[in-house]
Amino acid sequence: MTTYKAPLIDYKFLFEEVFDVYGIYEDLPNSSDLTPELTDSILEQAGKFAEQEIQPLNYPGHEEGCHWKDGKVTTPKGYKEVYQKYIESGWTQISENPIYGGQGLPRIINAAIGEMNLSACTAFGIYVTRDGSIAAIENNASKALKEKYLPKLIEGSWGGPMCMSEPHCGSDLGLLRTKAEPRTDGSYSISGTKMFITGGEADLAENNIHLVLARLPDSPKGIKGISLFIVPNILVNDDGSLGEKNGVSCGSIEHKMGLNGSATCVMNFDGATGYLVGGINKGMHAMFSMVNKSRFTIGQQGTALAEVSYQNAALYALDRLQMRALTGAQNPELVADPIIVHPDVRRMLLTQRAFAEGSRAFNTYIALLFDKQERTENEKEKQTCDALLDLLTPICKGFNSEMCTESVNLGLQTFGGHGYIRENGMEQFVRDARAAQIYEGTTGIQGLDLLGRKILASQGELLKVFTKEIHLFCEENKNHRQIKPFINRLSDVNNQWLELTLKVGTQAMTDPNNVGAASVDYLMYSGYVTFAYFWAKMAKSSAELLEKNDSHSPFHQAKLQTARFYFERLLPRTSLHAELILSSSDNLMEMNSDHFVF
Amino acid sequence: MTTYKAPLIDYKFLFEEVFDVYGIYEDLPNSSDLTPELTDSILEQAGKFAEQEIQPLNYPGHEEGCHWKDGKVTTPKGYKEVYQKYIESGWTQISENPIYGGQGLPRIINAAIGEMNLSACTAFGIYVTRDGSIAAIENNASKALKEKYLPKLIEGSWGGPMCMSEPHCGSDLGLLRTKAEPRTDGSYSISGTKMFITGGEADLAENNIHLVLARLPDSPKGIKGISLFIVPNILVNDDGSLGEKNGVSCGSIEHKMGLNGSATCVMNFDGATGYLVGGINKGMHAMFSMVNKSRFTIGQQGTALAEVSYQNAALYALDRLQMRALTGAQNPELVADPIIVHPDVRRMLLTQRAFAEGSRAFNTYIALLFDKQERTENEKEKQTCDALLDLLTPICKGFNSEMCTESVNLGLQTFGGHGYIRENGMEQFVRDARAAQIYEGTTGIQGLDLLGRKILASQGELLKVFTKEIHLFCEENKNHRQIKPFINRLSDVNNQWLELTLKVGTQAMTDPNNVGAASVDYLMYSGYVTFAYFWAKMAKSSAELLEKNDSHSPFHQAKLQTARFYFERLLPRTSLHAELILSSSDNLMEMNSDHFVF
Repeated sequence: MTTYKAPLIDYKFLFEEVFDVYGIYEDLPNSSDLTPELTDSILEQAGKFAEQEIQPLNYPGHEEGCHWKDGKVTTPKGYKEVYQKYIESGWTQISENPIYGGQGLPRIINAAIGEMNLSACTAFGIYVTRDGSIAAIENNASKALKEKYLPKLIEGSWGGPMCMSEPHCGSDLGLLRTKAEPRTDGSYSISGTKMFITGGEADLAENNIHLVLARLPDSPKGIKGISLFIVPNILVNDDGSLGEKNGVSCGSIEHKMGLNGSATCVMNFDGATGYLVGGINKGMHAMFSMVNKSRFTIGQQGTALAEVSYQNAALYALDRLQMRALTGAQNPELVADPIIVHPDVRRMLLTQRAFAEGSRAFNTYIALLFDKQERTENEKEKQTCDALLDLLTPICKGFNSEMCTESVNLGLQTFGGHGYIRENGMEQFVRDARAAQIYEGTTGIQGLDLLGRKILASQGELLKVFTKEIHLFCEENKNHRQIKPFINRLSDVNNQWLELTLKVGTQAMTDPNNVGAASVDYLMYSGYVTFAYFWAKMAKSSAELLEKNDSHSPFHQAKLQTARFYFERLLPRTSLHAELILSSSDNLMEMNSDHFVF
Repeated sequence: MTTYKAPLIDYKFLFEEVFDVYGIYEDLPNSSDLTPELTDSILEQAGKFAEQEIQPLNYPGHEEGCHWKDGKVTTPKGYKEVYQKYIESGWTQISENPIYGGQGLPRIINAAIGEMNLSACTAFGIYVTRDGSIAAIENNASKALKEKYLPKLIEGSWGGPMCMSEPHCGSDLGLLRTKAEPRTDGSYSISGTKMFITGGEADLAENNIHLVLARLPDSPKGIKGISLFIVPNILVNDDGSLGEKNGVSCGSIEHKMGLNGSATCVMNFDGATGYLVGGINKGMHAMFSMVNKSRFTIGQQGTALAEVSYQNAALYALDRLQMRALTGAQNPELVADPIIVHPDVRRMLLTQRAFAEGSRAFNTYIALLFDKQERTENEKEKQTCDALLDLLTPICKGFNSEMCTESVNLGLQTFGGHGYIRENGMEQFVRDARAAQIYEGTTGIQGLDLLGRKILASQGELLKVFTKEIHLFCEENKNHRQIKPFINRLSDVNNQWLELTLKVGTQAMTDPNNVGAASVDYLMYSGYVTFAYFWAKMAKSSAELLEKNDSHSPFHQAKLQTARFYFERLLPRTSLHAELILSSSDNLMEMNSDHFVF
């Protein structure tokens, strides 16, 4: 069985030393009351809840899975009780708008809690994440709809599943067929079948407020004809009480590779009553206001699973006795040395750790951007936040999820044969993690979003907002005694990022397929540079603290050593991706489609 | 549900055009009667058996798994009937020694059949693979033991599980505790617990002939004190009939990530009667005669799963309509284009295909070496085969299994969300494949075996046998009109292979940890060069055939295009591995063990 320990020390380091979170919040409107003491106490409580209440659900829920019978879904044993406890403790309200019952604390805190929940039990953690739905309603719905639905969503007693995919359309929402026919009372009659609906039906919340993409009869074809609707599972009376059952039903649940405790539903809408959110045919716009938040959550899943897999792999490597160190017995009194003496075991562990901690820093930076974006009254700062979030979200989602799969596989590998055995829990992390590369848009989609829709469409402007920040950091620290070698490498790959972008943009002009051919390697390249920036920042803080306090703090020493590992053993992957970005699309496109199968 | 089509056309290409198998066998003793007609007919029948009988077991067996009750194991529904049919058709006998009832056909044919079985249903394919056990007995046991046990093993009515691992020892067999106490009648009393025993108990064969590693009471500690024993599940009378039950029992079966149809058993030996195979304390030596064959089989699993996952992913990509090509609609009459128009989907498919076909060529070359090694009467040729097999086995096992996991994950990814759903069968390939990186020695162990035990221990001599062959091929073809660019690249990485080996050897002298730090990257580097050699050979045959016959054979065109993809998009990974091979072990070893967990 696996264990989990909330990474409180790392969050404290990031908040106080790397990102100067308290300094930043002091300058933001309505945020100055955030203190380290308050944050520490909240995160400590949340960590305890994750470790003690949520984590025990993880393995049994994987083995039991969800049950579907006559349209009703039962989650694994214990989920319901812990969910109830979770919402009663107010955890869903932390960073939501006080107007609708939220506590109004910065999103950075909610993000940290989210990671812990997802580490402890990813399938459960997904049920208590509804930032995306809340954002879609808050940013797009009418005042009346907001007042009717947001308080219960924020309180957690209602869920908010997002209903986009249909059997014949996943990435290509333009193909969707679900119909919305206007009724005379201003509501709509929604009919169609949605699939892959996470938490579409479950026994946790007393009601589900579905956010459904559908098409009006006279709407244009494609994505320009899509509108967004609130479709409650149980209709809500004007006084807020629950009324009649709506025409919504769960047709079945999927049997998946992992995330067995998370119900993935086929949802049937059969003349169900729906309420328009945002304008007619403005569904894609409304949806995009939740996309960044939802994709960020998937990026966090990457961190969460890499972290918990790392923790367990490291403990195993310290404990498992097998063979002797190549340099001679390290523990001659034992029958063998612990496998952590082997360089290759350390290579696997440090890869996991560099990803877990690097991505945590990256996520924290993004959560900070969400806060600044929402709170700042400085229009220019808001625009910078918008730009950075647009740029970094596909990297966070795409790169973190790819790295997570690599990490959790290394965690399993560290266990050897015991990693392949279900009871030991390491294979669950691999299976649970695998979804993150797919849902909310596959890695391929993230690559196209980043390179095509974001970078090339802005003629590189979006990218420059971030590379300039990195450039300034490099300039500031180019003579920094301890981290100079890191800064040199960071500066090189940062400059190369712009050069590659220019070249791929030129290639795209001769053949649009060059964008698709380069996109995933471009995404991966971008991820490694981004992580290098955050590892350099963490190294700087650690080096300065060690020097200032003349200390031998193991935590800060380990940070510096992990940074070195990152720069010397992971960042070199950028060279390979750079070469592949510039490889022509010919070697992909020349084969006749019919010759893929003989 | 997935489908499978035996790659007969590819095997015909490899046998007749790439490796000139029939020319080679004409020159080998007792082998000249092998004709293309005979081979084609055998492989066609075997392919049909795999497609029609074995493949239907695959998904249901994954879902059902094996059952254990009161020490008895029941395999999934249908396994028993197909197993019976398989052995009645004589498939287990194909390449075994005619003295013991085998058909004496070259191993290259058996290897091809093995791949097809493993593609159709890996868990089932494992039950009918017993080359390793047969080799261990044939090469080491007394005449009496061989005559008693080999005919039934070869016939398939008895199984031959290998019993090495114990709960506290996997890679480090020196720690094993199972005891063998000599009895006055020359037999031994075997006691101890073995785990991770594939097919240790099952309802398929009427008896199991366990090959058990154990330690005599006065044997030296470590691997020098290990002996190998035959321990039948049911004792065999002198007339060959089955006698009393032996003291062997199955304590439980593991619940695994995949290979659910393959029973992985805890086996208890409780004063069981065993018979010494090879000399006392010569167990490791006897075991090594089966290790190359067993590891080769795992390498084949890599090919098998990459192939079947590729086939299904390619069919899906041709069928699934989603979005338009970046260059504009390719099928304007349809609602969307098939996803095979997208460069990144092709990148995923071609990666799978380049690995599946490249590894099939590699495996075929190895199987040919097994045949030459066994049949040649030329001592020098035999030594060359020994050297090449020692060198290439860890690459085949380690590299193929790593590449397989990458491939099957790309197959799943091509399906998008539908890949994550169990019923669609793509996730099973990922789960089944994952074991190959672990059993018969993890990738880390293969890396150490290759770099430490094989290459550095032979002072590079083993490596030179292979790089010289590649060098000669490059010299011969350096002016070859169509494949010149491939030859140039192959020649470069081949030369670099020797240079890197020299450097890592020098680094190893200053610090043995540099061997461990480099080993997995060295293994991967070696794999990419090896595949480049076989892709260059396949490209050469294809180019010449296309020219000679003035033909547009799609099969040979596709081979050339896949070769180009390999050289332009996969072989560049060597640069990264080369850099990491030379990265110092300091960045792995400097962190204090205690600082891996906070």
